[in-house]
Amino acid sequence: MAHIDLGVDETLFPGISGPLRYRPETAKPLMELAEVLLRGPHPLTAGERELIAAYVSGLNECTFCCDSHSAFAAAQLDEGVELVDRVRADLDTAPVPEKLRALLRIAGAVQRGGRGVGAELVDAARAEGATDLEIHDTVLIAAAFCMYNRYVDGLATVVPADPTTYANTAQRIVRQGYLS
Amino acid sequence: MAHIDLGVDETLFPGISGPLRYRPETAKPLMELAEVLLRGPHPLTAGERELIAAYVSGLNECTFCCDSHSAFAAAQLDEGVELVDRVRADLDTAPVPEKLRALLRIAGAVQRGGRGVGAELVDAARAEGATDLEIHDTVLIAAAFCMYNRYVDGLATVVPADPTTYANTAQRIVRQGYLS
Repeated sequence: MAHIDLGVDETLFPGISGPLRYRPETAKPLMELAEVLLRGPHPLTAGERELIAAYVSGLNECTFCCDSHSAFAAAQLDEGVELVDRVRADLDTAPVPEKLRALLRIAGAVQRGGRGVGAELVDAARAEGATDLEIHDTVLIAAAFCMYNRYVDGLATVVPADPTTYANTAQRIVRQGYLS
Repeated sequence: MAHIDLGVDETLFPGISGPLRYRPETAKPLMELAEVLLRGPHPLTAGERELIAAYVSGLNECTFCCDSHSAFAAAQLDEGVELVDRVRADLDTAPVPEKLRALLRIAGAVQRGGRGVGAELVDAARAEGATDLEIHDTVLIAAAFCMYNRYVDGLATVVPADPTTYANTAQRIVRQGYLS
């Protein structure tokens, strides 16, 4: 049970979906931000950006967001869920391109606190070919998930009882995005 | 110097203003969220909501956001900057209404991580008269500033050389809001 009455059946609207229905005024910019960051035109694929979201959500131990965005990443990466699991288990040895590994290291630093993103992490990403836009958006995706994760867990929303929920939602997100 | 080329003179566009100009696609939902949370119609005053933002930004040690929102809070609270300083120095003894103190304690728990918002903190706020909406928005304001703070510091944006900048910006925010 969430800390507040979200006005919905929480088993039907788990995680962030309850608070989004509860407060449409804040839901609008929250979902517009997710759409731009994770699905807008971009040099990083949607799968790579969802992987950053899943990685940060895992570091924040937010079960709902981590399982959701892991499913959304898996649905959009050729390597599927195995790659997501490898990144979450050990970034240093996961079989990802070096540019993406460097960006994920920046995302991990943002998760611990913005002041921890040192020039050496940014230089390392740049040396692997990362652009200013990719560095900017990696920082903002990681920062945004430090918000979404706290929003979901700070209100003590419930996680789905049926784990197939995430894969079903992934199909909807891939087809229709975050604004549907 | 910020980690990336923001395309502006950073002394004229310190803190978040540089990244907002750099990426208008993400600036739009970021500022719409701030406007709804901090200035939309609400049982908490704009000064009280800015105080929550300043308090969380201080806990995150984000100088730009903390000094900015401290000035915005001071400009809209009868007790001015002295109250902001007291809250930031010692929430337990600061002369704030008990409902606001309880909400600030929830905000502090969100800053440390969403999973730390226990039912006892929510019950204490409710016992002081806090509504579901006030609890929801306190959680989301605190979560959102965990994002804004990481965005500003994760990109290593500069702080204003002239501290009167914050008070000047406060006058603009009070008059025109975050969408101007």
